[in-house]
Parts: sequence; structure tokens; C-alpha cells
Amino acid sequence: MALIVQKFGGTSVGSVERIEQVADKVKKFRDAGDDLVVVLSAMSGETNRLIELARQISDQPVPRELDVIVSTGEQVTIALLAMALIKRGVPAVSYTGNQVRILTDSAHNKARILQIDDQKIRTDLKAGRVVVVAGFQGVDEDGNITTLGRGGSDTTGVALAAALKADECQIYTDVDGVYTTDPRVVSQAQRLDKITFEEMLEMASLGSKVLQIRAVEFAGKYNVPLRVLHSFKEGPGTLITIDEEESMEQPIISGIAFNRDEAKLTIRGVPDTPGVAFKILGPISGANIEVDMIVQNVSHDNTTDFTFTVHRNDYQAALQVLQNTANEIGAREVIGDTKIAKVSIVGVGMRSHAGVASRMFEALAKESINIQMISTSEIKVSVVIEEKYLELAVRALHTAFELDAPRQGE
Amino acid sequence: MALIVQKFGGTSVGSVERIEQVADKVKKFRDAGDDLVVVLSAMSGETNRLIELARQISDQPVPRELDVIVSTGEQVTIALLAMALIKRGVPAVSYTGNQVRILTDSAHNKARILQIDDQKIRTDLKAGRVVVVAGFQGVDEDGNITTLGRGGSDTTGVALAAALKADECQIYTDVDGVYTTDPRVVSQAQRLDKITFEEMLEMASLGSKVLQIRAVEFAGKYNVPLRVLHSFKEGPGTLITIDEEESMEQPIISGIAFNRDEAKLTIRGVPDTPGVAFKILGPISGANIEVDMIVQNVSHDNTTDFTFTVHRNDYQAALQVLQNTANEIGAREVIGDTKIAKVSIVGVGMRSHAGVASRMFEALAKESINIQMISTSEIKVSVVIEEKYLELAVRALHTAFELDAPRQGE
Repeated sequence: MALIVQKFGGTSVGSVERIEQVADKVKKFRDAGDDLVVVLSAMSGETNRLIELARQISDQPVPRELDVIVSTGEQVTIALLAMALIKRGVPAVSYTGNQVRILTDSAHNKARILQIDDQKIRTDLKAGRVVVVAGFQGVDEDGNITTLGRGGSDTTGVALAAALKADECQIYTDVDGVYTTDPRVVSQAQRLDKITFEEMLEMASLGSKVLQIRAVEFAGKYNVPLRVLHSFKEGPGTLITIDEEESMEQPIISGIAFNRDEAKLTIRGVPDTPGVAFKILGPISGANIEVDMIVQNVSHDNTTDFTFTVHRNDYQAALQVLQNTANEIGAREVIGDTKIAKVSIVGVGMRSHAGVASRMFEALAKESINIQMISTSEIKVSVVIEEKYLELAVRALHTAFELDAPRQGE
Repeated sequence: MALIVQKFGGTSVGSVERIEQVADKVKKFRDAGDDLVVVLSAMSGETNRLIELARQISDQPVPRELDVIVSTGEQVTIALLAMALIKRGVPAVSYTGNQVRILTDSAHNKARILQIDDQKIRTDLKAGRVVVVAGFQGVDEDGNITTLGRGGSDTTGVALAAALKADECQIYTDVDGVYTTDPRVVSQAQRLDKITFEEMLEMASLGSKVLQIRAVEFAGKYNVPLRVLHSFKEGPGTLITIDEEESMEQPIISGIAFNRDEAKLTIRGVPDTPGVAFKILGPISGANIEVDMIVQNVSHDNTTDFTFTVHRNDYQAALQVLQNTANEIGAREVIGDTKIAKVSIVGVGMRSHAGVASRMFEALAKESINIQMISTSEIKVSVVIEEKYLELAVRALHTAFELDAPRQGE
């Protein structure tokens, strides 16, 4: 008898047939004696349809009113699932964000959860009901409907699990777990039985789009065991949890993440004076451009080179800003490159193992892949390489760190 | 500076273009200095789409959950209109039934309004905002979403007007007012400038489907001046109000209503004993069949004939029930006819005028139309005739009661 929060995304509830399948799955858990809170997204495509409707009225829909419209998407799916459960003889009740009361701040379209009233849900659970909650939405102090921003249903699930002190928060997706890397790139990629929150954060932010970053942060903060599972296939999935035992058996590297969404900009021959980094990056962030990696080399002849990466969509804008800065501070030139890729090895195990970075560089060197930038954190090493070598690099690293073979005892 | 509640139905908000037109109209009133509360239905077709979705899960959707789904229809239109108003520089805010707080009983799918909290709306009106409210929905004491049943948006409009003591409740429709009779049958049918609540009730229940009956009752009870107008054509519409001055100029008859939805059943040779009417109608109502007109003739030879009308859809079921009853009570025979029509003359003026009925019968006799049943109330006389004479009868009565010519001074 466990208390489980289950979250199903838009594809899992994308049709009446799918909703019936979800009801079958929920019933199976209920029949096994678990208490269940189910969090749903809108049917896939519905949120976009609603936003499109609003855009027909205004290019910049009023955020408060947009939330009123968009929140109807989940309102439909929760009631449909509750009906499907009741049809199966499983007592169930649906709640909107307002009805639960998921209290958020008033930042419409990107609100943050402040507090969850668990009273209603606990009463229903005690009465043997499955509680079906609309994800992605809440209500502010004045009773205005808010939404958490795209993908926010994961966060709703985790927040509910935290508030209810649930035994597990299960996130059902279209993959059967978190992999050592993208199986489309490396056919030997292995599903991980376990991964730590920190590793998952690095994997997620680096482009393994299984879970929303905020949901993982939230789960880590409140220590909610999170499990990623496939909506319609059986399997144990991947459990995301705190790093309890730092055993010797633990693999050094859990996975290899990558992305090709970034572009690189370099400003050369910058007079090396204090505050120069701020002079360069201040205008970039002033233009609302997010910067990912930053590398500054040691200077020679009192000038230095300064390189950073931005999202490819922001490349042109960043280039323009940087040109202006170069003129102002008297830098020699600005160059850029959009044909790059970032590859990262991630693992809490590297904390206690020396030589992880050099093993990475060696594997890349063996394939004659030139490294353009390097950045490291406690549990990750990232390199920027030429985009065309991406697949080769990921495969080489996957083998070098012994991720190809199924691992025992996990 | 008046406080006006305006209600627009599904066709009036059936597309983004229509919603923009409604916004133009609302803005015009606002610019003229009126305080406005706008009540909206769902986009036409949307409620049926949502019900269909629920039916795919279950033939008998759980009423509570059906309300959760169906209420999203209005939630979308109110936000779209609020956006369209704000785009025009008119401050506006949308509220669901729950947000206003339109408190209802817990009879899901057919709830009744118990109380309306006018505080939020008054604050917004004072701040110069147009308040856009979802029609057809409310919330019960436990926070469950309820709906008022089909067409309930009219009721929401009237109830809000009553709660706010509004100067007028304007119901925008696809007709430009209430007519003396259906213009498709009588080309000389005249728009009425005014009609009393009682007359409107008789007209509505007899098939002039301009307004929902419950909304008219509500308006009459709380004395809310109600005006029927065309959504997209200019014009004064028809004001529905209490019968203030019973002047001599008042026409005897305000209008002629008719319908061809009914069927007639007669049970003949019924032993005339006390309680026989109940023995006949008890099983009918027990089968959930509504009865409209009932006529019992004086008996002769200790037997009587008993005739009543039901909706045509219920004819076969009623016939079966009546056959059984006839066998039980030893009646001679059961006969029925679906090819009938009901024609009624309606007017508060007939209270003080004798001979209205005979003038009606005379007009029908002149056209050789046989009257099969007669029933009367204080402000109405109804007759059942053969269906094929319906148009002829309505035209003859329209002329006989001098409704053909435009009337002065109303």
C-alpha cells in the first residue's frame, strides 16, 4: 500500500482510446492496493489549438486571459479520465488547479507553485477515490487562473507528491526510461535503472528531454523519488533519487548528453582590463540572450580572447550586440560559428575519480576530433566540437566509458 | 450612465470574427458611458463537441464530470472577448462561474442559481472595467463546477442583472425582437416594442423560441427589464417588462404562438368514476412523459372520453401505456393522431375583454377549420387543429386580431 502520484503527458491522453488505456493502467495500481493521485496534461495538440485561437484575437494575448483559455485543456482530460475510471468501477473525482487549491504566484503563463492544499485530496484518498488533478495550472491569491508554463504538468506532479509525502512520483512518457545516451545515435545505449537528481539535471539541461528541469529540481529539493516510465509498455523505468550509497561499484559516468542547438561567438584581441567580462556579457544579457558556456583564455600581449555559446536562434542578435561591444572596447575582431555541437559526460562518480576528463579527451583524440571549448563542473565535462563529428564523438565516448554493455546489479 | 447586462449566445460568439464584432458592440456601449457586464455562451457547436467527447467514454457520462468538461466552452469565449476588448483599449476581465461566485445547488447538468456574489463585479465596474462572465455555469457549496442545463446562459444574464440591480438585461439573439407571430408564416408579422413577462412566458412555452422560459420567469420574479435584440443588426428590439399601465389603447392580443411538436391521444368510453383521470395520467407521467393539454368532456351513459397531448417523440410510448390502462379500466378504445397543430392567441389584454375566444373561433370557422380541442388560461386561448391548416389558421387569426398593421405609440 503505497501513495503514488502518476503523471501522464499529452500524448498519453491524446485520444479517447489513450485515456481508456490510462484508466486501465491506473485501475491496475488501484486494484493492487495503492492510493493514487493522477496528474494529466491536455490532449496533445489541444494547448496549441487554444493558443492559436487566442492569437487570432491578438498577437500578444493578455497573459491573464490566455491562462483562462489554455487551462481548459487539462480540465477536459481530467474529467474524461475520471469518467473512464468510474466506468471501470473505480471511484474517482477530478479537480482543477483551483479546486485542489494549487496556490501560485501571479506570474501568468509562467507561474510558480507556492503552496498546495492537500486536505481535499487526503479526504478523497481516505474514501478510496482516485484523485485526478489538472496539471500545469493553479490559482493565485485573488482567484485568478494561472498556468505554470509549457511542460509544467511534471512540476504539478512532483509538487503534489511533495505536499502529500508520496512514496513515488511516476512520470509516464513516450520512452521507457533514461538512457546512457540517445539510442538513435548509439544503438547500444542502455536504460539506467537509477540516476541521481544532479545527474538528471545535467542530462536534462543538456538536451535529454525526458523530464522538465524544474520538475527535477523540485523533486531533488523535496527529495521526492521520481520514476520515468513508458505510458503503454511495461517495465521498471528509471528511478531518479538521491545519491544514497556512494559505492565503489558505481559507474564513473552515467550518461552522455549532447545538443546541437548552440552557436559559438568569439571576441578576439580584447584589452585585458578588470571588468571586461561584464562589458562583453552585460549587453548580451541586456538583450535577453541566454549564455551557456563561457571560456576566457589566459592573456598574452595584454589582450585576451573571450568565447561563449548562445542558442542558435539568438546567434544573429548576439553577433550584432558583440560587434558594437567590440567597437566600443577596441577589440580586434568578432568571429562566430553555428556549426558546433556540445557533448557532455555526466556522472556523480567522477567526483571521486581522477582522470575522467583526460580519458574523454583521449577518446576524442583517437578519432581525430578537435576540441574547441571545454567546460567542467563537479559531475560533468562538456566539450564543443565541430557539428559533423557529433555522432562519432558520442559513440566513441559511450564505448570508452564502458556504457555499451548492460550493467549488472543496478 | 446605466448598468447593463448583455448576453450573447453561441451563434453570436461562433467564430473569432463574431467575437470581434461583439467586442465592437460592447465598446460602443462603454464609450457611451454605460457600465457593462457581458454574459457569453460557448461557441456554437462547442458544447455538443464536448458532450460527444464525454459520450465516447460513457453513454451516461457522470454528471459531475460532464459539468467539468462542458463548462470549458464558455471559459474559452469569455477570455477571447476580454482579450478583444483590451485590444480595443477597453479594460476588461473575464470570470468563470466559480470566480464570480455564482452559487448553485448541486444538481449537476441542471443546477439552479442560489446566490450571486456581486462584490468582485462591483469593484471591477467601479474601476471602469467591462466584466465578462461565463454563462450557463456556477459552483456548488463544495466547490464543484455545475451547469444550468442547455440554454442556461439567458438565466445567468437575468440572475446577474437581478443581483446587480441592473437597469436592463439585453439578450442578443439571431432575431431583432419578439414578433406577433412567426414571420415565416405570416409575412405581415410585426415586431412588438413591448410585451409583458406573462405574455412572453406563454409565447415562449408555445414555441416562440426566442428566450429560455426559466430566464423569463426569473426576470419576471425579480422585475428585471429584459430586452431581446439582434446581435449584429441595429434596432430597439423588444422590451419584456411588467404590465405597468393597463391602458385602453393596449391591444387585446399581443401575438399568436403555435407549434407542431405535439400528438393527441384519446381514450374512449372510460367508466366515469372518481379518480379516473389519475388512473389514466398516472402511468403516463410514471413513464416520464410530459403531458400538455388535457380535455375531458362531460360524460354520457356513465362513460366519458379523455384526450391529452404529448410531444410527438413520446407518442408511441404514450400509446402503449394508454392501451394497457384501457385494458385495465375497461375503456372502449384508444385512438391517436400525430398530424395536429396547436395555435394560441396570447395577450394580457384579454383579461378585461369578453368575447376574445369567440372572436378566435369565428375567425377559424370562416376558414372552415375544425377545432379539435380547446384550452384556456387567463391570458391565452389554445386550440388544436389539423396540422395542414396551421398556416391558414395563424394568418386568419393575425388578421382577425388586427396584428397585420404596424401599431402606433408603442
